[in-house]
Amino acid sequence: MSVLIHFSLFPTDKGTSVSPYVARSLRIIRESGLPYKLGPMSTALEGEWEEVMAVVERCFRELKKDSSRIYMTLQMDYRAGAVNRIEGKIKSVEEKL
Amino acid sequence: MSVLIHFSLFPTDKGTSVSPYVARSLRIIRESGLPYKLGPMSTALEGEWEEVMAVVERCFRELKKDSSRIYMTLQMDYRAGAVNRIEGKIKSVEEKL
Amino acid sequence: MSVLIHFSLFPTDKGTSVSPYVARSLRIIRESGLPYKLGPMSTALEGEWEEVMAVVERCFRELKKDSSRIYMTLQMDYRAGAVNRIEGKIKSVEEKL
Amino acid sequence: MSVLIHFSLFPTDKGTSVSPYVARSLRIIRESGLPYKLGPMSTALEGEWEEVMAVVERCFRELKKDSSRIYMTLQMDYRAGAVNRIEGKIKSVEEKL
Repeated sequence: MSVLIHFSLFPTDKGTSVSPYVARSLRIIRESGLPYKLGPMSTALEGEWEEVMAVVERCFRELKKDSSRIYMTLQMDYRAGAVNRIEGKIKSVEEKL
Repeated sequence: MSVLIHFSLFPTDKGTSVSPYVARSLRIIRESGLPYKLGPMSTALEGEWEEVMAVVERCFRELKKDSSRIYMTLQMDYRAGAVNRIEGKIKSVEEKL
Repeated sequence: MSVLIHFSLFPTDKGTSVSPYVARSLRIIRESGLPYKLGPMSTALEGEWEEVMAVVERCFRELKKDSSRIYMTLQMDYRAGAVNRIEGKIKSVEEKL
Repeated sequence: MSVLIHFSLFPTDKGTSVSPYVARSLRIIRESGLPYKLGPMSTALEGEWEEVMAVVERCFRELKKDSSRIYMTLQMDYRAGAVNRIEGKIKSVEEKL
């Protein structure tokens, strides 16, 4: 039932350096207790739809406190019955090589 | 407070023709009453975060009934105080030309 | 052989109003002569892979002249043998309703 | 001058298991010699615009040999003067925590 997402969420009214803002999201993600993986352009997160989307919403609300323009891109991959996909998908591809 | 999103949601286990599945989502979107715009690769939707995300979740749950693999890509653009952006953003760009 | 893409390309170091920058891209897109459709969050474009990617690259190079940080999200949908999809895909979904 | 991208490219006419197809892309990416990082939902790649886009195009052409429908989502982040961002961006965020 669980889904795998990855997303990038950042203010676009704060100039070129946004890592402090990304760090705020990462703090929220870590506190969620859900499996996650930080990548160079997005963070992957796994869990029930409601769980992962609640985390994304918390990140958005945190940023909105002091950002007047925010952009997000999010991708979701659902596969019936699949679990532990954050690690599993990478392994599955590497085994094919 | 409202956000503008656009998203594409489709099964990847149903072969090359997925418009019947996309039509199911569009039905849910229309019933939501939120402003929307169907594009060739995604549907734009405007409203409060909770409203638009609830619609996206309903579309996902509808597809999940008979799809075992589903992909979604979603982009969100938040701009403090902005409204009527589905039409307004296109106008704003066209006026600059 | 042709592909359908849609993309959003914008500077993130220019504050909240970026429509003048988006308009520059739109000018390049129109001059390309390729079928396109401006949406509220992205522009759809159809043509051979090389053609559409050359247009995207021109838009990027134009923005790079005076932007020091630029973000892009792009989605592509390829379907063997399909043509006129910018209009055709919307029709196909609406007919299913 | 270099850009950071991440992308997912997969056939949607091959059923639920697409890791063999993703592995083909990864092989092309590795042979390119460009810095890359495989994630659970996408692969990050760094280099000049022409270099990274040439790799993406090779991956697409490889898949097109035996897929009749292919989807791709790609995000790009350009930051003037920045290098070694595949590792650097993760570090930068983690240091803020």
